[in-house]
Amino acid sequence: MQTHFEFELPAWVEPFVAGYDPDFSTPDKRMALAIALSAENIKKQTGGPFGAAIFDSNHQLIAPGVNLVPSKNCSILHAEMVAIALAQQALGRYDLSDAGQETYELAASTEPCAMCFGAVPWSGVKRLLCGARDEDARAVGFDEGAKLSEWPEALQERGIDVVRDIARADAVAVLNDYAKQQGTIY
Amino acid sequence: MQTHFEFELPAWVEPFVAGYDPDFSTPDKRMALAIALSAENIKKQTGGPFGAAIFDSNHQLIAPGVNLVPSKNCSILHAEMVAIALAQQALGRYDLSDAGQETYELAASTEPCAMCFGAVPWSGVKRLLCGARDEDARAVGFDEGAKLSEWPEALQERGIDVVRDIARADAVAVLNDYAKQQGTIY
Repeated sequence: MQTHFEFELPAWVEPFVAGYDPDFSTPDKRMALAIALSAENIKKQTGGPFGAAIFDSNHQLIAPGVNLVPSKNCSILHAEMVAIALAQQALGRYDLSDAGQETYELAASTEPCAMCFGAVPWSGVKRLLCGARDEDARAVGFDEGAKLSEWPEALQERGIDVVRDIARADAVAVLNDYAKQQGTIY
Repeated sequence: MQTHFEFELPAWVEPFVAGYDPDFSTPDKRMALAIALSAENIKKQTGGPFGAAIFDSNHQLIAPGVNLVPSKNCSILHAEMVAIALAQQALGRYDLSDAGQETYELAASTEPCAMCFGAVPWSGVKRLLCGARDEDARAVGFDEGAKLSEWPEALQERGIDVVRDIARADAVAVLNDYAKQQGTIY
């Protein structure tokens, strides 16, 4: 019986982040990292065209995430889920907000699918930055799942700020590159 | 930087399953295992009062799951997610259906929260059995998240059968036991 599960970020991620400008003082700069991770993930062929990152209230990077679905044979490992799991491990708690005391932020290169949308409130992040829109992902063949049409409002009602369309064109360009390369759509 | 993530089922799970009657020929019997896992998980204090299991089309158990959120400090590790991740590892693919050829089933002791609902279509399972209802979980203080009110229909539209209220009273009894013990609600 399989009783153990593990994943490791692709080997390129740690040096990539170490060599990246650590100035994450603006939403654009934080989103630029998530998009850069999405682009590098397809270039290195380590997963789908999606990147994410979690930052603390001082705009320090806590955890990056990239889509690992095909490379790790696990449908759960969307970029957002990878970043959430790693951030919680790094901090040693399942509620990043630490009962509402802390303001962590998740930047996602594309708006969250139905699963990741549902995962956001449980993670304890208090702000969600989005690049590409659902319809941009759908335009290249990805399925975002059955989400409430008013999903940003549903998060906001739970005290999670949602900021959309940050560097949307840059995020869409990565999705289109992936589609042109005829990458696996799942 | 945290680059690695892993979890292990609690040590009691493998012998518990090995000693369990392997006749899973009816939905009631399959659900009984999910509920037994939920009960044992609180008895052993290894997580919340939720259990799950994935079965193949011959009603063989592929992977059990229990809630590991508090014990592994990870908000993603709901029982359904644990079972999905382990089943996919066991089979070596992220789509349990293998492009629609196979009919795997997920039994969940309580109806899926918003995250697990979103995860079900990506997992490749083709049938979802549910014990306790959302409102039963809410009645003891758990939050099921912002789900479509027509979530069973949304799964059915995607070719996933949903069967509710299997041994609901047994599943609710475990939730109530947990609440009486004043277990952590998250």
